[in-house]
Amino acid sequence: MNHTTRNMKKIILFSLLIFTISNIQAQNDADAFKIKEIYGETLTKSQAYPWLYSLTTNIGGRISGSPEAMAAVEYTRQMLDTLGLDSTWIQPCYVPHWERGDKEQARIVNSKTMGTIDLTVLALGNSIGTGNNGLTAEVIEVQSLDEIEKLGRAKIEGKIVFFNRPADATQINTFSAYGGAVDQRVHGPAIAANFGAVGAIVRSVTPSLDDVPHTGVTVTSRYDDGIKEIPSIAVSTIDAELLSRILKQEEGVNLYFRTTSRMMGKKLSYNVIGEIKGSQFPDEIILIGGHLDSWDVGQGAHDDGSGVVHAMATLQMMKAIDYQPKRTIRCVLFMNEENGQQGSRAYADASNANNEFHLAAIESDRGGFTPRGFGCEGNSDTYPERFAKFKKFEELLKPYGLSLTKGGSGADVSRLKSQKGLLIGLIPDSQRYFDVHHTAADNIETVNQRELDMGVASILSLVYLIDQYGL
Amino acid sequence: MNHTTRNMKKIILFSLLIFTISNIQAQNDADAFKIKEIYGETLTKSQAYPWLYSLTTNIGGRISGSPEAMAAVEYTRQMLDTLGLDSTWIQPCYVPHWERGDKEQARIVNSKTMGTIDLTVLALGNSIGTGNNGLTAEVIEVQSLDEIEKLGRAKIEGKIVFFNRPADATQINTFSAYGGAVDQRVHGPAIAANFGAVGAIVRSVTPSLDDVPHTGVTVTSRYDDGIKEIPSIAVSTIDAELLSRILKQEEGVNLYFRTTSRMMGKKLSYNVIGEIKGSQFPDEIILIGGHLDSWDVGQGAHDDGSGVVHAMATLQMMKAIDYQPKRTIRCVLFMNEENGQQGSRAYADASNANNEFHLAAIESDRGGFTPRGFGCEGNSDTYPERFAKFKKFEELLKPYGLSLTKGGSGADVSRLKSQKGLLIGLIPDSQRYFDVHHTAADNIETVNQRELDMGVASILSLVYLIDQYGL
Repeated sequence: MNHTTRNMKKIILFSLLIFTISNIQAQNDADAFKIKEIYGETLTKSQAYPWLYSLTTNIGGRISGSPEAMAAVEYTRQMLDTLGLDSTWIQPCYVPHWERGDKEQARIVNSKTMGTIDLTVLALGNSIGTGNNGLTAEVIEVQSLDEIEKLGRAKIEGKIVFFNRPADATQINTFSAYGGAVDQRVHGPAIAANFGAVGAIVRSVTPSLDDVPHTGVTVTSRYDDGIKEIPSIAVSTIDAELLSRILKQEEGVNLYFRTTSRMMGKKLSYNVIGEIKGSQFPDEIILIGGHLDSWDVGQGAHDDGSGVVHAMATLQMMKAIDYQPKRTIRCVLFMNEENGQQGSRAYADASNANNEFHLAAIESDRGGFTPRGFGCEGNSDTYPERFAKFKKFEELLKPYGLSLTKGGSGADVSRLKSQKGLLIGLIPDSQRYFDVHHTAADNIETVNQRELDMGVASILSLVYLIDQYGL
Repeated sequence: MNHTTRNMKKIILFSLLIFTISNIQAQNDADAFKIKEIYGETLTKSQAYPWLYSLTTNIGGRISGSPEAMAAVEYTRQMLDTLGLDSTWIQPCYVPHWERGDKEQARIVNSKTMGTIDLTVLALGNSIGTGNNGLTAEVIEVQSLDEIEKLGRAKIEGKIVFFNRPADATQINTFSAYGGAVDQRVHGPAIAANFGAVGAIVRSVTPSLDDVPHTGVTVTSRYDDGIKEIPSIAVSTIDAELLSRILKQEEGVNLYFRTTSRMMGKKLSYNVIGEIKGSQFPDEIILIGGHLDSWDVGQGAHDDGSGVVHAMATLQMMKAIDYQPKRTIRCVLFMNEENGQQGSRAYADASNANNEFHLAAIESDRGGFTPRGFGCEGNSDTYPERFAKFKKFEELLKPYGLSLTKGGSGADVSRLKSQKGLLIGLIPDSQRYFDVHHTAADNIETVNQRELDMGVASILSLVYLIDQYGL
């Protein structure tokens, strides 16, 4: 090889390198440009807020099995039908139908210092009622499920157990605060019943100190065989503080409460689904989902009307910017996340039976606040590689304030774990969420249109990158 | 040097290296621990929200020169006095006193298709009034200051100029959207007057489409010699759209408006200041500031009650966690940021005359929303080195969602530029700010306590790091 040839080769190699680098740079610039377009168009054309406005103010709270939940199925299906998707359909599932019944009553009946004091309460979701005459018993305060076991049957039997461990307000992420206290609501009544308690009253699971009771589901899985369910209610954090103060000062404090809540059996309901078929890899599904049902006491605006319209508007905006996906993009509005998760079970069962593969399943169920990033989890053998690819998208999303991290996805999409795709959760700013979560205050007035639309733009940007480059 | 000696030296060097690395790690851990403490304590003990509650609901809107502004001086001084600081004082300044006068009226008077249509407006701050009989003239719409020059005197003379370029809703950072449109409000009336306009009506400077007019200052600096000031008002963005639509369909559309706003001359007012003296470097000042005055139409909750209580609560929490600063930490509540900035002028003049040195001056004047980071600017010769040191703090602040970037600080602290310290601005999430900015809606209901307290914790964490390590 002579000197000139060697130099030629060097020049060619160098040119190829420059070509490759500038190609990568050009692709990067093209992606950055596309994402800028997605944000700009979404902030001006998204239907998320008007849809949420209808869902919350025309329909309102949508507990599974209720007429409102059926109206939400019908409304969202109709709206998806307007988008010109490749297909929309509803998927049947059988959901528990629980009713709150009469407005709950609760009061301390025999305080020596304060007499009779009304407390602000809500029955816990799926709880049985007290019967028409209500329930009166002595109250005992505990800080944890363990404490019941330590106190034992002698101290618990015949009493109403008051779970009062606060959600830790010093946590920056309010979901961590929630996660650290919610066991009391979910399993407390069952554990208390196992030791002979006749009722349970649980401090609302929120780091806020407010006078709004926060409901939420309680479950039966930890009742011992033969133990009958006990009625259980949530009390506002301010009233929990009051009750605790009285219990510290007095002995033999009795509580009266009355709820007529009850299970009404199973009802037929539906998930609502719409999709755009992928042009190159139609068998690789990218799912975007939220849950259609909500608690009955508010409008379900943040929980999870926001997630519902995030998912719907992602498809709407995909059409609005005329984006043709390579992979199949599917919006799934799950029924019954709050008190049974029968919708996500039906969806995962059908999906697995059809040998479907969800490359990514993105859930929005943490409110409609300014997005801060996405967390993701997955099945162990494929997870490291997929997470590494996912993490590479961060550079393009950082200018929009988004971080990509390991972490939980969501209750509905996590049922797709066996398909070994990536399970992703949108992470909005969490500071305000537990002011309204599971309360009568979860209404449209607490949702900001730009913050909501930023969620749509964030999800669509991530969907675009996954669709372009896979995982 | 024999083999053993050389080995000994190696071992010693290696040990020193390990010692140094583990010392750095230990220091890093200690700082991370301190910042965690700052957040946890602030989220449970900060006085920011109760103080803001008083400032907004007991005092309310606090335009410079008003009794409310004086009440705010007195209230904040009293609150600072309760903290056991080394000193608190008030610093005189002479501020313009502008009054809005009667409720403004504005209407389209001769639409052929719609007849008479009332518009929702507010006089611009510092604007003169129309006189008792109001002003009626033909309206001409423009999109920019340049367009007036292009149209020239022939088209402008005798008319009311309608500035209607929207703040760009596709911008992610709403301050960029604001910055891209606010020249119309600040200088539009003056430029229009130079070409013979008799009045100006400016589209509210917000990316939101709403029915709330947003006021704000207009200035006289660009009036040509001998040109008389013209009355100027802001119109809600919804009514701006309406007016624009009518102007596209009809010719000779006349507008009537009436305001009795007027300048009342100069009044004596004050900045409010409190400080903790540094134990090691008392001459290096770290300033935290917000502005005490606000517009008259709302409660000045986000603008800038939040900044005021951010600054005050930073000192309160410093005492609460018993932190003894090495450097002097000074809270400065500036008067008259909105329509004259006489407070910050007086402060900077006095500071320069006393040969003070502000190592860092941190301003909070972008609302009480969840903090996303700090921007900083500085004087060119010291800036690169100081910014590099500042940027190193980012790793410790990232877990709290904070980025440290180059960028603007704030109108009040930027007057300290010649002292060559770092000028820093708190950057909260900006999505909701221009829903309420300079409107009647800027009230305590729009402030979330946790979000507000996150601001205090973020500022105190940064102050802690600057105090420990300098810049």
